[in-house]
Amino acid sequence: TMDKWNDAKKAEERDRISQSLEKIKGRIAAGEVEFSVRQEDIHMAVETLLIAELGEVGKKLHTARSRNDQVALDMHMYMKIEVAEIAVLVLGLQKTLLCLAKEHEQTIMPGYTHLQRAQPVTFAHHLLAYMQMLSRDFRRLQGVWQGADIMPLGAGALAGTTLPIDREFVAKELNFSQIYGNSMDAVSDRDYVLEFLAFSSILMMHLSRLSEEVILWASSEFSFIELDDAYTTGSSMMPQKKNPDVAELVRGKTGRVFGNMMALFTTLKGLPLTYNKDLQEDKEGLFDTIDTVKFSLIVYREMLATMKVNSDVMLAAVLDDFSNATDLADYLVKKNLPFRQAHSIVGKCVHYAIENTLMLSQIPLDIYKEFSELFEDDLLTMIKPQACLQNRNCYGGPSPLQTRLQIEIWERTLLEEEQIIKDLQNKL
Amino acid sequence: TMDKWNDAKKAEERDRISQSLEKIKGRIAAGEVEFSVRQEDIHMAVETLLIAELGEVGKKLHTARSRNDQVALDMHMYMKIEVAEIAVLVLGLQKTLLCLAKEHEQTIMPGYTHLQRAQPVTFAHHLLAYMQMLSRDFRRLQGVWQGADIMPLGAGALAGTTLPIDREFVAKELNFSQIYGNSMDAVSDRDYVLEFLAFSSILMMHLSRLSEEVILWASSEFSFIELDDAYTTGSSMMPQKKNPDVAELVRGKTGRVFGNMMALFTTLKGLPLTYNKDLQEDKEGLFDTIDTVKFSLIVYREMLATMKVNSDVMLAAVLDDFSNATDLADYLVKKNLPFRQAHSIVGKCVHYAIENTLMLSQIPLDIYKEFSELFEDDLLTMIKPQACLQNRNCYGGPSPLQTRLQIEIWERTLLEEEQIIKDLQNKL
Amino acid sequence: TMDKWNDAKKAEERDRISQSLEKIKGRIAAGEVEFSVRQEDIHMAVETLLIAELGEVGKKLHTARSRNDQVALDMHMYMKIEVAEIAVLVLGLQKTLLCLAKEHEQTIMPGYTHLQRAQPVTFAHHLLAYMQMLSRDFRRLQGVWQGADIMPLGAGALAGTTLPIDREFVAKELNFSQIYGNSMDAVSDRDYVLEFLAFSSILMMHLSRLSEEVILWASSEFSFIELDDAYTTGSSMMPQKKNPDVAELVRGKTGRVFGNMMALFTTLKGLPLTYNKDLQEDKEGLFDTIDTVKFSLIVYREMLATMKVNSDVMLAAVLDDFSNATDLADYLVKKNLPFRQAHSIVGKCVHYAIENTLMLSQIPLDIYKEFSELFEDDLLTMIKPQACLQNRNCYGGPSPLQTRLQIEIWERTLLEEEQIIKDLQNKL
Amino acid sequence: TMDKWNDAKKAEERDRISQSLEKIKGRIAAGEVEFSVRQEDIHMAVETLLIAELGEVGKKLHTARSRNDQVALDMHMYMKIEVAEIAVLVLGLQKTLLCLAKEHEQTIMPGYTHLQRAQPVTFAHHLLAYMQMLSRDFRRLQGVWQGADIMPLGAGALAGTTLPIDREFVAKELNFSQIYGNSMDAVSDRDYVLEFLAFSSILMMHLSRLSEEVILWASSEFSFIELDDAYTTGSSMMPQKKNPDVAELVRGKTGRVFGNMMALFTTLKGLPLTYNKDLQEDKEGLFDTIDTVKFSLIVYREMLATMKVNSDVMLAAVLDDFSNATDLADYLVKKNLPFRQAHSIVGKCVHYAIENTLMLSQIPLDIYKEFSELFEDDLLTMIKPQACLQNRNCYGGPSPLQTRLQIEIWERTLLEEEQIIKDLQNKL
Repeated sequence: TMDKWNDAKKAEERDRISQSLEKIKGRIAAGEVEFSVRQEDIHMAVETLLIAELGEVGKKLHTARSRNDQVALDMHMYMKIEVAEIAVLVLGLQKTLLCLAKEHEQTIMPGYTHLQRAQPVTFAHHLLAYMQMLSRDFRRLQGVWQGADIMPLGAGALAGTTLPIDREFVAKELNFSQIYGNSMDAVSDRDYVLEFLAFSSILMMHLSRLSEEVILWASSEFSFIELDDAYTTGSSMMPQKKNPDVAELVRGKTGRVFGNMMALFTTLKGLPLTYNKDLQEDKEGLFDTIDTVKFSLIVYREMLATMKVNSDVMLAAVLDDFSNATDLADYLVKKNLPFRQAHSIVGKCVHYAIENTLMLSQIPLDIYKEFSELFEDDLLTMIKPQACLQNRNCYGGPSPLQTRLQIEIWERTLLEEEQIIKDLQNKL
Repeated sequence: TMDKWNDAKKAEERDRISQSLEKIKGRIAAGEVEFSVRQEDIHMAVETLLIAELGEVGKKLHTARSRNDQVALDMHMYMKIEVAEIAVLVLGLQKTLLCLAKEHEQTIMPGYTHLQRAQPVTFAHHLLAYMQMLSRDFRRLQGVWQGADIMPLGAGALAGTTLPIDREFVAKELNFSQIYGNSMDAVSDRDYVLEFLAFSSILMMHLSRLSEEVILWASSEFSFIELDDAYTTGSSMMPQKKNPDVAELVRGKTGRVFGNMMALFTTLKGLPLTYNKDLQEDKEGLFDTIDTVKFSLIVYREMLATMKVNSDVMLAAVLDDFSNATDLADYLVKKNLPFRQAHSIVGKCVHYAIENTLMLSQIPLDIYKEFSELFEDDLLTMIKPQACLQNRNCYGGPSPLQTRLQIEIWERTLLEEEQIIKDLQNKL
Repeated sequence: TMDKWNDAKKAEERDRISQSLEKIKGRIAAGEVEFSVRQEDIHMAVETLLIAELGEVGKKLHTARSRNDQVALDMHMYMKIEVAEIAVLVLGLQKTLLCLAKEHEQTIMPGYTHLQRAQPVTFAHHLLAYMQMLSRDFRRLQGVWQGADIMPLGAGALAGTTLPIDREFVAKELNFSQIYGNSMDAVSDRDYVLEFLAFSSILMMHLSRLSEEVILWASSEFSFIELDDAYTTGSSMMPQKKNPDVAELVRGKTGRVFGNMMALFTTLKGLPLTYNKDLQEDKEGLFDTIDTVKFSLIVYREMLATMKVNSDVMLAAVLDDFSNATDLADYLVKKNLPFRQAHSIVGKCVHYAIENTLMLSQIPLDIYKEFSELFEDDLLTMIKPQACLQNRNCYGGPSPLQTRLQIEIWERTLLEEEQIIKDLQNKL
Repeated sequence: TMDKWNDAKKAEERDRISQSLEKIKGRIAAGEVEFSVRQEDIHMAVETLLIAELGEVGKKLHTARSRNDQVALDMHMYMKIEVAEIAVLVLGLQKTLLCLAKEHEQTIMPGYTHLQRAQPVTFAHHLLAYMQMLSRDFRRLQGVWQGADIMPLGAGALAGTTLPIDREFVAKELNFSQIYGNSMDAVSDRDYVLEFLAFSSILMMHLSRLSEEVILWASSEFSFIELDDAYTTGSSMMPQKKNPDVAELVRGKTGRVFGNMMALFTTLKGLPLTYNKDLQEDKEGLFDTIDTVKFSLIVYREMLATMKVNSDVMLAAVLDDFSNATDLADYLVKKNLPFRQAHSIVGKCVHYAIENTLMLSQIPLDIYKEFSELFEDDLLTMIKPQACLQNRNCYGGPSPLQTRLQIEIWERTLLEEEQIIKDLQNKL
């Protein structure tokens, strides 16, 4: 009976604490609670409020707890929330890219290597390269989730507790899939933060590349796109000037994210187990990175969705070049000429064209025939940009047919990502 | 019939090329081929040998190829091989840790926070914290594999090819699970290299922490372990001196790996699509990182396996401290005293002990009773290191019982990792 | 006369603007001005206030100005102020080190290599190593000043101005020693910020090394020092525990500073001239670094000044080791035995000592004589720590005589630094 | 007499050692010596050769030496040599820039902000921005010299030596200006290496910016320059294609240098004094950085010297823009209109021009007069690129007059740098 009485008393205490905590939560949410630095942290602040309300019973709150495992728990829960939010934003940008790709399946533009025009592609094909990058980012983000979705509570300061706690029950309540199997690791693990910073750095690297292209395309020299006023700055004096500020800012902020990653790697290097005050330095860089990544994904989505694409300028750039030289060589190869010979003959054709300031499409057929008898009537059709494009029809190639196929794949993939996000959200 | 004749001719050419390539491979393996920088790269070197042997037919080798997708393919295949090898080494180090943990389930040592003795743990428990880290490294390594296991061949210079190639067939032949769905992405993607460098940096960070501890433990001041001569240097003059060179070297090499990662991130920042010569800088840092990671994993395994553990010194350190103060507080909490009160009473006990140059275990019971009537006969047993340890018996805690449980879990986990490695090896 | 009238009018306008600006400055200082984001920046905010007060004349303020050169100017002036302030703090920490060195000229402690006791030094000698580092930091800080002390105003947006301005006059008014000789460089130069971040990173690296040592020395295992309560945290329950939080925090913050440096390097990589929005990212990392460096220098000064040094523990550590083995070898060398032979004989002595669990000072002379006939009566005096120390009397060595000499040199050097700081302050 | 005899004997031994070392040096230079890893390092290898030749006397070589101070000495001497060589290369690139600037004092081109054409400058003015950067690099390189020009020899392993050596004599013999005043600092200082890596990182950042511009200028879209074939790659098939490989490679190698810097910073973070094996990691990154910096400076010099500048394309770009809008505003300001009003009027003019697809120079005067009565006949002359340029005539501006002045200043400055280099070379 004494046990029963005890159990009943404990249950009553538990309920009082629980109800009081709910009330405190309400008061904090309502902005009625003023925090002071003297309370050191949120945990002490809440405990103080609890004791003020409940007296002795409130002093039981910290039982089987340590700030070390409490702070770790907060970070893990926070990271899960942010991962889920960022996943939504990655998907959002992908959706915009998909829309744009659908619009520009036939928009021919030069494909570049070394910033030199090389072979014709489409704007859709170019944009879908970034889709691939973002889907890899999406995969890596799930890795971050896995690292964050482990519950540290119960690890105490470093060596667990002698009190009989039920960590599995707590993990279930808090929606964690895993529990740290080692208390020392639980309070000193920052892998998931590093993994997030590495994910973010790769994502920002991708956006820095897209930024570079947007800035190039928006220059007078390229004139491939025109950005919406909302994503540029001009001046009242020079209304024609449209500085691609947003793209520049995102490119610039790439540095900040790399720096935050480097900072935490440096901080962790050479630290003995378990908790050391150095670890307190994990927070600011993480928060700043989250803000930066979210900002970048949001503005990019809007900036891309509102930009004007100058398809005619893009096409003109393709016509004004020798980017169909490879197609000319392939023409000969298809007629069974060994590649190296085809290669050499085309070199001579291009040379001839340059000497006579012609494009390849402007060389008369009889001249072509002097270079090789394999050249025939169908040649001039074959080296038109549209044909070059259509013929690049292997899996992953830029032909409209292949682009269509990829778009269909992406439509399915984005639905899958949507489902993954829902699953994450259910585990918050 | 013309078609049939053509097909037969093509098959014959294919076989001749194929047989000749096998022969060349044999000659290279036998060291009979001398390479020259004038051939620019391995692809041109092989093609030159092939043409020397087969004449015209050899000139067909480069059909539907570009150096851009060829180099990309090589890097992907190389990375897969290295990932599989490094996975074996990670597992190897884990096996050593498991062995050591089994030996030291009962080896009591101080657990530290802020490099101050805090609560007693065991050497097994301490080592198993590193097991957790390595298993997260193992998971991340699989992410690298996923990024590497995508076939770029067929992407051409950047825009695929107009020739009718079968990328799925090639992927199957080369054991790739996926094919790049976008040719521009295929030749400029370095995500998998970055992901490997990030994996390596986190792994080296872990080893730098372990190194710091090994160096501390091997110092005269700690004297917790003695490293085998093979992993230290001394001098003929000072035979007693054992410099923990290997641990220092691994800690030092952490910088090199972080640097290699930072280097590639910098190189990639702001590059427009697709291939730019800058990307050539991806190799040396990768090779160097692979060498460093392999070296570190190998020497660590051997160094740990051969070190001597001074259990008595570890135990003496625990006895010479107040790391059982938390257990004293828990004692009172179990007697239903609110935690904050228990906390305050124990503070007074420790204060008394210090003033009288006693350890907690040396304070007589009647003195304890002056601080709280809840203290009883069983107290002095409860605050012995062995008892403190046994009582820290929640999941993930340092008690021998929990350690045993974790060891069993690890035995299963390592078997699973072994199976994963076999699967990777089958896909090389 | 028209000219004269004009000049008079201009002078009057100038005076009105000047007086009004002074008034506005006063109002801002008094907190009477409320800023709004809509004014975009401080320059527009001030101009708006000026126009509100003066009307048309206020609209002349921006004449021959551009935000690009104005922002650059602000950064240069700000940097000079901060350099001067940080110089004071570096000197401050040096003064503390000098005080401590004077107190500990005779405090013998082990000198370490590989964290193994190697040869005896003094605490003064050890601390003076950090003096050297700080004086190099002081030199580098003057380099930062040189890079900051160049006036960009007049560079306009990027190409100067067509208006007849007098940049030399402005430079003199604003106390700049140099003027940018190229307008494009003036608005895009961030070298001085990078140089500051590199200076800060090296400084923090120095402090991270000192932090590591402070943390080691404050551990139970070393017990060389005791930190003042103000620079540690304990707990009410474990009053004996003194976590060296401040030293850990400084060590941890090293990462933040390295990260800020890496961030700006990344941001600047590959930017075309001149101003790009990316450059806006130069500020936060700089501000944060300045705060971190100042914080670290200030707390270190106080923490070192208040710590308690356990000289007896330090000496005991020296006595309990073979760190006098080199001195034994030198003893033989002075008697003209070739070094390699002396080296080999001492090796045998140490080996003998270890086998017989003796220290070198405990081996009887006749045993020594068995190893070499050169050993004589004076031997045992020579290998006492005090003698070992006194004999290490070359320039830069740890002997009290040399330490005294260095202290005198530092006293002069710090006076010189004081003068340098005054000169900087006069040029603000 | 015994003393005299001793002195004579010592002198004789010294001479024998000295002569033998000269002989060994000769044999090494002649390639007659084969080194083995078993000798551990060059010092032991030489000593072994010496003993083989001289017997007992050779065993005296290592007297008062330690590998720690020997390795440190080597690094310092090596760094001084490399600093002097790199200074020559920096000066070399500056000379090339000066030549180019002289050729292009009148070559008008658009000055860019945000990669948007902003105001007209000259190619000379643009290039001279890089002169400024390089001269700051030159200053920083002298800082590296100062850090390297301190002699560590005599510091022993960490605590000097008990033997009576004369460090000043040695410093003089080896041409060092300073001697380390603290033996512990002497063997663990890597500041000068970090300072070199920071210098190199800033230099490479400068070259990465120039590379970005060269790549842009060499694109079809800009067509401002044409690179010499030696610094591009093309293909036999596409002879028109000129990939700016060298510029891309230098931009890419920027990452490598940043990475090497980050690596050493990481390695040094948190190391206790004095020598730790981690420090061995300082070498490879340094060597690699030196190679990279030298390569980059050399190829840049040649690439710039041989490139063809398309002045007409540059001029056409200026004519096709509104980059004279600021000049239009300045025109009104000079007629005493407050700047903000001028600014607003010009905004309207540009707006009008865009609506009517005109350039500013094509708007008829009477239309201008409708915007402001202050516009007069001289207007159209004033907004011609040549006039805009000539009028930007403040110190540091792009006017040919100012450019001439700067060129004269640079001619003097480069002579001064030449003298500085000679002084360094004399101190090797």
